Amino acid sequence: MAAKGRVLMVVMDGLGDRAVPEFSARTPLQKARTPNLDWFARNGSSGIMDVIAPGVRPGSDTAHLALLGYDPYEVYAGRGPFEAAGIGLVGKKGDVAFRCNFATVDEGMNVIDRRAGRIAEPETDELLEALQSLEFSGVEAIVAKGTEHRAALILRGQGLSPEVSDVDPHELGPVWESKPLAPEAEFTAMTVNRFVRRSHEILDGHPVNEARRAEGKPPANILLPRGAGAFPDIVPFPQRTGMSAACVAGVGMIRGICKVCGLDVLELPDCCTGGLSTDMERKAEIALEALEEHDFVMLNVKAADISGHDSLPDQKVEVIERIDRMFALIRERLPEDVVMALTADHSTPVSVGDHSGDPVPLTIHSRHVVRDGTEGYDEASCAKGRLGRIRGKDLMPILMDLANRSEKFGA
Amino acid sequence: MAAKGRVLMVVMDGLGDRAVPEFSARTPLQKARTPNLDWFARNGSSGIMDVIAPGVRPGSDTAHLALLGYDPYEVYAGRGPFEAAGIGLVGKKGDVAFRCNFATVDEGMNVIDRRAGRIAEPETDELLEALQSLEFSGVEAIVAKGTEHRAALILRGQGLSPEVSDVDPHELGPVWESKPLAPEAEFTAMTVNRFVRRSHEILDGHPVNEARRAEGKPPANILLPRGAGAFPDIVPFPQRTGMSAACVAGVGMIRGICKVCGLDVLELPDCCTGGLSTDMERKAEIALEALEEHDFVMLNVKAADISGHDSLPDQKVEVIERIDRMFALIRERLPEDVVMALTADHSTPVSVGDHSGDPVPLTIHSRHVVRDGTEGYDEASCAKGRLGRIRGKDLMPILMDLANRSEKFGA
Repeated sequence: MAAKGRVLMVVMDGLGDRAVPEFSARTPLQKARTPNLDWFARNGSSGIMDVIAPGVRPGSDTAHLALLGYDPYEVYAGRGPFEAAGIGLVGKKGDVAFRCNFATVDEGMNVIDRRAGRIAEPETDELLEALQSLEFSGVEAIVAKGTEHRAALILRGQGLSPEVSDVDPHELGPVWESKPLAPEAEFTAMTVNRFVRRSHEILDGHPVNEARRAEGKPPANILLPRGAGAFPDIVPFPQRTGMSAACVAGVGMIRGICKVCGLDVLELPDCCTGGLSTDMERKAEIALEALEEHDFVMLNVKAADISGHDSLPDQKVEVIERIDRMFALIRERLPEDVVMALTADHSTPVSVGDHSGDPVPLTIHSRHVVRDGTEGYDEASCAKGRLGRIRGKDLMPILMDLANRSEKFGA
Repeated sequence: MAAKGRVLMVVMDGLGDRAVPEFSARTPLQKARTPNLDWFARNGSSGIMDVIAPGVRPGSDTAHLALLGYDPYEVYAGRGPFEAAGIGLVGKKGDVAFRCNFATVDEGMNVIDRRAGRIAEPETDELLEALQSLEFSGVEAIVAKGTEHRAALILRGQGLSPEVSDVDPHELGPVWESKPLAPEAEFTAMTVNRFVRRSHEILDGHPVNEARRAEGKPPANILLPRGAGAFPDIVPFPQRTGMSAACVAGVGMIRGICKVCGLDVLELPDCCTGGLSTDMERKAEIALEALEEHDFVMLNVKAADISGHDSLPDQKVEVIERIDRMFALIRERLPEDVVMALTADHSTPVSVGDHSGDPVPLTIHSRHVVRDGTEGYDEASCAKGRLGRIRGKDLMPILMDLANRSEKFGA
């Protein structure tokens, strides 16, 4: 058997698009000048990929689970756990996790500021400290801070269910009661409501909030959970694949997914954010360095998704051309044994302003992958390649096989 | 309804490959001159096929089950039964089958020759004769000879399990005890060990071995089972498809699979082996003759797989060009009603030296199949064809439909 190779998966977040009338019905990727992406297409096998299934609009969470080889229909149960993990709070099977906001409520429990004046560290540290170690009929409440007014909550104990409605009303007005969405969730909804009332009692008179009131700032006197989800029972990626694995991503939720799946989530310098201004070349360098210590690296570059969400076609073209320059660096430095996938987690068409179910382009490059004559890297050219139309969860088995890491089925 | 056609499936074992750097990144199939294969691609519908599933490395056994239309994940339970069937010992559901070696052990039950000096017929006939009709607590032991020192063992009775470890130590040294790998296999392991001890008692003093000792040859004084497997509960191919069926193959295990699936496994003249030197033209003639008596014929040509396992790219090109000449004969003599598939059971890339999960090329030729403009028969050209990317188990339904032999689903 030949030597095992390493694998680099580059996820160009939200890259795929639809025909843009102002671009003579081309997509931003078709309009952009992308000599390096095209070089990889000409020197690889290409296809298109339904990350979940044809016509299904992926979330970032379900999409990345599929790209890592999991069946999202089997393992996905809500966004909360990945948000929690993204800010460092990794739970275990049976836990129910929520995203939370610090907010300001009046005496009648009406939300008057959903972000408590965008309160931030170090104030949120002190407030969360006061909420640690709460317990409700045997259920432990664990809290952790996110950026600014954001936080996460994990409930841990017997008989919990993620089937409960939000407490955050998503607008100004009365705080909602969490309600069970299934009969078995009554205890959980009750526990959430008890936690919220208790958080208000503790926070309202907290010295931090007394000081804020004195300064004329809105007190962060309640924590509002939303987006309940169950921690999935996931076989860690390194155990499933036999590969040590790392993730290079700026976005919290994607970092959270990778953490839950057992990847090493690398700390990035301040220039590498999940934003438009991120330093893509530096991110690529970090990914290539990570391959020295890991068999598998996932590199997520977020920017094209942002232009898609903001419906800015010209900006998306620009972003794609910056991504292409990042691939010039990768092309120069990619070690010979590495099998690389160039793909996206979903399409974010500028005409939609949100994720769509359009399949994404895919090119696989390696020293030995069959060259299939694909002329360029875009939504239409890749579809003529020999990979045909595959599903997201099939990508990892294909990459592992090309890296000579698959088990034989049979003799 | 139109007249029913016949079906010829030509399996070019291990044909698929990856880019070979010395061939300017072409595959052996892309480099080889294959005017006849290309003619069929130009006059047919083409695609690529994941014999099991994307990225999954097929064994020869699981692959051929899929090509015959079975779901290997449902019916496959170990290699032993197919090896046994390959040498003529076809069991039934509930039987547990093993491959065996005649070996030489000393008085301390240490293996001192794993092949008993490559003992062969007619001596093995006499020795196996002495081992027939053994019974252990209601379990019948059935033995049959293979080539040279090889044999097969079937245990038949109530409460047997294939979850037992090997007796053959796979190297010189003490004979292993078979151990249960699951709680329900304790009785089976005990029975295997009783069979092995009894075989030693019977064989050690057998006149054949007395004579061998007198000639200074190692006695074949024990039979060492390995590779336990359960006989699958398979609906015979002719019953599933309504087609009488034959197999033309030189390799024992493939003959075994076809036997287990209820195909007529044709005896071949000495020039038709499973080796490199096999007479491919003669094999093709035999397959075409077999179509006179059968509705379906599977023809397996092994040679390309051997060059792949041996990592010999130039030899693989030569072998492919010989296969192409075989297709010249087929092209000349193929009856008009025959639907023919030209494909492989798996890829055996020369850069890997073993089976890989790369999809295999597929062309279907018949008088009425849609001509899709495919220009040649190789891993990349076929992928542009209209069959797209299919699974191995989908091939038989497609061929049966083109032969006007499918049942309508609905009205």
